[in-house]
Amino acid sequence: MDVMTAIKGRRSVRSFTDQPVDQDMLLKLLEAAVWAPSAGNGQTWRFVIVTEETMMKKLKMVSPGLLGDPPAVFVIAQDMALSKQKGGQMGPETLTKMDSAMAAQNIMLAAHAMGLGTCVIASFHPGAAAKLLDMPEQIVPTLMVTVGHPAVKPPPPKRLFEEVYWFEAYNG
Amino acid sequence: MDVMTAIKGRRSVRSFTDQPVDQDMLLKLLEAAVWAPSAGNGQTWRFVIVTEETMMKKLKMVSPGLLGDPPAVFVIAQDMALSKQKGGQMGPETLTKMDSAMAAQNIMLAAHAMGLGTCVIASFHPGAAAKLLDMPEQIVPTLMVTVGHPAVKPPPPKRLFEEVYWFEAYNG
Repeated sequence: MDVMTAIKGRRSVRSFTDQPVDQDMLLKLLEAAVWAPSAGNGQTWRFVIVTEETMMKKLKMVSPGLLGDPPAVFVIAQDMALSKQKGGQMGPETLTKMDSAMAAQNIMLAAHAMGLGTCVIASFHPGAAAKLLDMPEQIVPTLMVTVGHPAVKPPPPKRLFEEVYWFEAYNG
Repeated sequence: MDVMTAIKGRRSVRSFTDQPVDQDMLLKLLEAAVWAPSAGNGQTWRFVIVTEETMMKKLKMVSPGLLGDPPAVFVIAQDMALSKQKGGQMGPETLTKMDSAMAAQNIMLAAHAMGLGTCVIASFHPGAAAKLLDMPEQIVPTLMVTVGHPAVKPPPPKRLFEEVYWFEAYNG
């Protein structure tokens, strides 16, 4: 699928069929994730893919944003100690969030091109999710992306365009 | 260009030819940006595209990460007041950074598919850049993306893969 078609066709999908996502598809999405850029090529991201039913239920209990019944969730965590070592204070506070988000966007675009639906989720309790997933102290979940076969194709929400850009200087 | 080809072929380009980027290409990249997802569909992003030589020189003076001579720079700012209103404290601190990064990734992938080179930049002085670009207090630059015709095609840096993912729980 063409890049621009994927960018414009991707939707936030929150309703999935019961069909699981094949492991080779999940690995392809991981591959898309790790080809995102990262601050100083630090690649401080760490991914846990949850597919097992009991773990998914527990994860949902600590994640208000995790709606519906996705067959798979990518938990994008960051090694905050490594990030601080590489990027100073800006690493854990800012760069890790941006790196995770760029990796998430790659996952979502690649998934859409494969006929899968996704939704990015920032509303969860990082500490509780980390404990659940056996993460040591320096590994902190930053974003989640649900993945599954879409049960519905949501309509595109209206996009602002002319209102949000200017050339050379802000003129809002 | 196919999504996965763009994801894997995109490089961080820091050396550009003198050729300017056509305005219709810049607008196409903006279109890619605004089709990124945003927290609660808030679309709190605001874009200033700098192409004018004097402004570019000034912008470089406040942006240590802005290297080389790109013919265009997307300054991705956020309306922090609007973000706080929509998402509470998590808006300005976290969601704005992630939204900007997902928009940046769309710009970079779309640009690569159009034969353009890009580099995402987080190292700049937000306050100084905001002042330079006439941004009011609540509009804060979060990320920049340089855009131009690549003078070189950098080799891909090595990607971690097997070392950075696990299924069901962290096992680092």
